Amino acid sequence: MNIDSIKNGIVIDHIKAGKGMEIYKFLNLDAMECPVAIIKNAVSRRMGKKDIIKIDTTPDIDLRVLGYIDPDATINVIQDEKLVKKYHPGLPETIKDIIKCKNPRCITSTEQELPHIFKLTDKEKHIYRCVYCETQAK
Amino acid sequence: MNIDSIKNGIVIDHIKAGKGMEIYKFLNLDAMECPVAIIKNAVSRRMGKKDIIKIDTTPDIDLRVLGYIDPDATINVIQDEKLVKKYHPGLPETIKDIIKCKNPRCITSTEQELPHIFKLTDKEKHIYRCVYCETQAK
Repeated sequence: MNIDSIKNGIVIDHIKAGKGMEIYKFLNLDAMECPVAIIKNAVSRRMGKKDIIKIDTTPDIDLRVLGYIDPDATINVIQDEKLVKKYHPGLPETIKDIIKCKNPRCITSTEQELPHIFKLTDKEKHIYRCVYCETQAK
Repeated sequence: MNIDSIKNGIVIDHIKAGKGMEIYKFLNLDAMECPVAIIKNAVSRRMGKKDIIKIDTTPDIDLRVLGYIDPDATINVIQDEKLVKKYHPGLPETIKDIIKCKNPRCITSTEQELPHIFKLTDKEKHIYRCVYCETQAK
């Protein structure tokens, strides 16, 4: 089951099977007015199964944050039906206002205007910690 | 943005734009192991925008219950790459264990083994009522 080409937009390919819906929610694609497709459990020679997301517009989002969910996904940028850029998001060094610190004693729980910032502290294990209280992100 | 053909499965077409994800959750497609595609805001000559769901297997579900969400959707049953059945689910007369009665004084809230059954009481307005307490489904 494939989806044919889009003219201008983004194809997020090689998403780990099962992570597609997480990315869909994370990018808030439900709120998009443009065509959006999500395929789960597509057949992949390399991965066995994979998820794919196609967005028929160029979203105004820094897609590198996707690396927090799936650093090995492939982001394809399509312009005029041509592939103009292809990259893996990789693990971002910091993530800001993507996840919230769950430590009730963290300063972010009382100072509500503070941004929630996490830093990558262990690349191997994909561990992020709050920059204020060092609580591990879950 | 189209999805090419499936060999054996179901295509739910002409879903009212925005209802696709509701049907996805309703049919619990997230738990399926087979390829599943959902397209939202696909261009439709008839409807302007529509959602489409493709399931690459024949699910063991009575799809007529979909009528509760979108009676005008088109259900296409595909076998060996051929369309063998095409129908609109229509409004089901009764729905069983799909939604729960929210009236705290309804007998279903204390007698937990009782099935939650709702009957269509107003076809024009798509109103369903609990068969036990007549509370309107929301």
